[in-house]
Amino acid sequence: MTSAADLQALLDGPHAALREDTRRRLSKIGLERADGLSRDEYRDLVLEWVREVGASGDGARSFPVAAGGQDDPGGRIATFQTTGHADLSLLVKMGVQFGLFGGAIHRLGTERHLALLKDVGTVDLPGCFAMSESGHGSDVRSIRTQARYDADAGEFVIHTPDETARKDWIGNAARHARMAAVFAQLDVAGEAQGVHCFLVPLRSESGEVLPGIEIEDCGDKMGLQGVDNGRIRFNAVRIPRENLLDRFGSVDADGVYSSPIPTPAARFFTMIGALVEGRICIAGAGLAVARNALTIAVRWGERRRQFGTGLDMDTPLMDYLTHQRRLLIPVAESYVLQAAHDHLVARYVSVVEGGEGQREVEALAAGLKAVSTWHMTAAVQDARECCGGKGYLWENRFASLRNDSDVFTTFEGDNTVLMQLVAKTLLSDYAQQFEDLDAVGLARHLGTRQASRVLSDLTNRFSRAELLDPAWQLDALRFREERLIDSLARRLRTLTGREKLDPLRALARCQDHALAVSRAFVERQAHELFQANVSGELLTQVRDLAALSTIERDRAWFLEHGFLSADAAKDLQKQVNTLLRELRPHALTLVGGFGVPDALLRAPIAVAEQLGGAGSD
Amino acid sequence: MTSAADLQALLDGPHAALREDTRRRLSKIGLERADGLSRDEYRDLVLEWVREVGASGDGARSFPVAAGGQDDPGGRIATFQTTGHADLSLLVKMGVQFGLFGGAIHRLGTERHLALLKDVGTVDLPGCFAMSESGHGSDVRSIRTQARYDADAGEFVIHTPDETARKDWIGNAARHARMAAVFAQLDVAGEAQGVHCFLVPLRSESGEVLPGIEIEDCGDKMGLQGVDNGRIRFNAVRIPRENLLDRFGSVDADGVYSSPIPTPAARFFTMIGALVEGRICIAGAGLAVARNALTIAVRWGERRRQFGTGLDMDTPLMDYLTHQRRLLIPVAESYVLQAAHDHLVARYVSVVEGGEGQREVEALAAGLKAVSTWHMTAAVQDARECCGGKGYLWENRFASLRNDSDVFTTFEGDNTVLMQLVAKTLLSDYAQQFEDLDAVGLARHLGTRQASRVLSDLTNRFSRAELLDPAWQLDALRFREERLIDSLARRLRTLTGREKLDPLRALARCQDHALAVSRAFVERQAHELFQANVSGELLTQVRDLAALSTIERDRAWFLEHGFLSADAAKDLQKQVNTLLRELRPHALTLVGGFGVPDALLRAPIAVAEQLGGAGSD
Repeated sequence: MTSAADLQALLDGPHAALREDTRRRLSKIGLERADGLSRDEYRDLVLEWVREVGASGDGARSFPVAAGGQDDPGGRIATFQTTGHADLSLLVKMGVQFGLFGGAIHRLGTERHLALLKDVGTVDLPGCFAMSESGHGSDVRSIRTQARYDADAGEFVIHTPDETARKDWIGNAARHARMAAVFAQLDVAGEAQGVHCFLVPLRSESGEVLPGIEIEDCGDKMGLQGVDNGRIRFNAVRIPRENLLDRFGSVDADGVYSSPIPTPAARFFTMIGALVEGRICIAGAGLAVARNALTIAVRWGERRRQFGTGLDMDTPLMDYLTHQRRLLIPVAESYVLQAAHDHLVARYVSVVEGGEGQREVEALAAGLKAVSTWHMTAAVQDARECCGGKGYLWENRFASLRNDSDVFTTFEGDNTVLMQLVAKTLLSDYAQQFEDLDAVGLARHLGTRQASRVLSDLTNRFSRAELLDPAWQLDALRFREERLIDSLARRLRTLTGREKLDPLRALARCQDHALAVSRAFVERQAHELFQANVSGELLTQVRDLAALSTIERDRAWFLEHGFLSADAAKDLQKQVNTLLRELRPHALTLVGGFGVPDALLRAPIAVAEQLGGAGSD
Repeated sequence: MTSAADLQALLDGPHAALREDTRRRLSKIGLERADGLSRDEYRDLVLEWVREVGASGDGARSFPVAAGGQDDPGGRIATFQTTGHADLSLLVKMGVQFGLFGGAIHRLGTERHLALLKDVGTVDLPGCFAMSESGHGSDVRSIRTQARYDADAGEFVIHTPDETARKDWIGNAARHARMAAVFAQLDVAGEAQGVHCFLVPLRSESGEVLPGIEIEDCGDKMGLQGVDNGRIRFNAVRIPRENLLDRFGSVDADGVYSSPIPTPAARFFTMIGALVEGRICIAGAGLAVARNALTIAVRWGERRRQFGTGLDMDTPLMDYLTHQRRLLIPVAESYVLQAAHDHLVARYVSVVEGGEGQREVEALAAGLKAVSTWHMTAAVQDARECCGGKGYLWENRFASLRNDSDVFTTFEGDNTVLMQLVAKTLLSDYAQQFEDLDAVGLARHLGTRQASRVLSDLTNRFSRAELLDPAWQLDALRFREERLIDSLARRLRTLTGREKLDPLRALARCQDHALAVSRAFVERQAHELFQANVSGELLTQVRDLAALSTIERDRAWFLEHGFLSADAAKDLQKQVNTLLRELRPHALTLVGGFGVPDALLRAPIAVAEQLGGAGSD
């Protein structure tokens, strides 16, 4: 029989030992010390924790060995995700320091910059990542901070022309950062070279803000109060020529600009692509947050009896169907989404090591970040409500779980914007596919489509065996994805052709359709990947519940497109309810597999040992 | 053309002047004084506000004229809802003082108790409402606090036998209440008479906790930190015989129990029914909170431009279809749900004045409380995400809107439990209907059902004119409600008959179905009521959007039950998108109609006057 330990081994994946180390380290870091602190005290405590992470060697894990690191981005992403079970201000602040600030130097810099990474990893050089601007949240290409090259002085002049160009929401800026990786529009001899990244000192060693730099605090936030988000203005700040992170574009001593990449647009996408790791990290952390919330709610649902009299005296909340629907479905999805995350990390590591597939990684990272963090907000809310008044008490963690994580749907790219990026990639792959097809291939392609169109006629039903057949499940998810992209492409052709809309406006008209395409893409891929890991009865049931509930949620679409008949759709719902009943006795094992130690969970209503050892150990 | 003022008049309804007074009064109460206070300071400030409400006369509004009131429960519910636009700790604390504590005395007491109401209304006697117990959250019938009558002393002995019987979550208890309305099991001469309510002094005039009373603070919560929720234990506390609120059951000087209502079960439901006002109030407040969130997000969506470059330079967020879907649909629903709320209040007032229909009022109150507060949590979350990082800043109010309101889905009855109560009422009405039918009536009934079953065949489509026909919309919602209740009754018959489950377990097996029945009932009723108010093009579009998006959201069900063909379901979605485009230019007017003054909204990103006067004034 599959135990919680088996499940945890599956979720922990190739970095199990590292994750276990991280859990142990964070269990002893003193998370409870944050309770009741003032905002500034909390921020200073979090900085202290970030330094501890640095001292453990984890901060530099993804940096080159030569720069004091271990050249292990996959390990770094795993420990980041595991930190998502602990304090999220710590998560975000270390993400800024090691991932964004360090990552910019590492991925956009050249030899001369890498020396800095040692101090980044130990947090001797606290830094920040100044990309977003007040006027341009999700559109980095149109930021307006200026970086004019002064050839006579051999310096760049970094300048904020107006309020919309003010750097905004910059983590670590308000209190701790001594240096910023600043994104600005490079101007060399009057020629615009597009967005580049520059290292700009912000504070002296003693913490005083340097001349020409103006920093203000973003103020109180819904959560993440342990992160010092700030706004930065630059008043003609001069930095040496060497402070340009010049891997993809440099200015030589004579003031001549050169780049290995010919056009500013291509340069921009290469640079931004190098920073995809942040999205991957947030996707993983979102999954971790959801697991905390679900663990608390399932344990409480197991312990709490709803009615005190009569018939239902001994009925734990988890025995109720609505409770099972609200909790066990996201529990199953948590397993499935982790498979997609593991795959994404492996592909990302391969690309970083020089392999093919950057576009694919970018699309999946964007899509999975959005799907995972929406999964998180829904799971946290349902879990909170399932814990009733207990869930509303501060001590049971939902307040901080939710308030600290809520911005995950917004930062590292707004989810809605990201989903549209995914759709654009899928559309261009789709177009490419047609260009590559010869007449025979095209006929065959259309033939396939025709076949899947009549997969089911309207009196058709599926047996239990069919519904529980992984091939049937994938067939459904693939059918949906193919049909959605196909019909989106057709709609766009009509809108840009007959109705003469420009492509962007045409896509805006189909925005809900584009989101559906992206979700179908992510879900199909996640289920495909998860299926490869399934063995044993319990995981088979998890697979079936996740797949059938995914189809059930979108069953209107499957009905509209002839994949399900009305009767088949009803059968599907019954099957989901049956699976919930079958999985219900394993609820504690399933959240045990999430492996969140009590010391990180810190919810009095969910202490594992009081539940007869079915917890995480 | 319909203006924001016209819309506001519709929403304000018969109590428009009173609501305007309340808005004005609350605008000047100094809501910003709560910022940055410690928990205790905040609670004391909120008590001060509650006293101001008392001084305005609003506290006693629903009390009898003889007790210093105005005998105006409808007005009281209106001002309560309007207070939902301001500080929610104030809302809840005044709800406890005037509504629950005062309401218990008013509705469950007799002549001798009503004299207390004057001091309740002025807050000279701060009180609390001690119903919930730690072990029995949603099941009041099985509370275990004891009230034994000591005939020799002529006193009741109020006692907490163990930890599960501890009173829990009692608002006003931790710091301010001097008296509690305590629900306990009455025992007279060894005979159990069921739950009754007793007035028990908690604190002296100088605020010291009295002997035998033990009070602890529930501690920090997710929100509502201005409310002093506490836990109370009674150690054989003696109170005079007169402290029983004895409208539905009394003990005379000789120690003989009597009641106008024969059975303990009937007494219990009469007493609890008298307290339905709390649910009605929370339903209304939930709608108010949603309006605040939607007003902020729509105004920001109108002002904020998403992309800084190229084609889309001048595109406000509100022009995006996903933004319209996330905001304008709940805006339209807000209008529809208010119609149901207004109707419920009118029916409630009629019942309080001695009219028929208590069961109907209880069912609609339970259902609307659940539907409105779920509407609220979804609207607040979508609105927050639509405001991106700005929505995450504390100053823009989403943190407090969400954290303070989140417990609305839990208190005054957990939403899931309430929806099951509604389903039980509907089922028993359904059974009654069959008992009342003679053979001819039954045949006619079945004939009707048969007709609606084939309303649409599978190639059927509906024209735009049909979809926009209010009769068609109601027909769809009625068809769904009837079919759902019918099929639920059939399933229960099978489960209790052939499968021999007891009725409670049978209903538990169909819990998701029961929830669907209740939602269908509430939505049908809300749309029916709203339709009666519609005039002019704008409200017609609001009606159409709300109705069609309600059907669209559940279109899988309509497809499964032959009401919509696949093509018709697709047409419906297109029509929703068309309506969104048509309503989009009126977005500011629609939220202007919500009538939330800037002084209550207090969100810097949503100040009305910066939007060219299309705001609330």
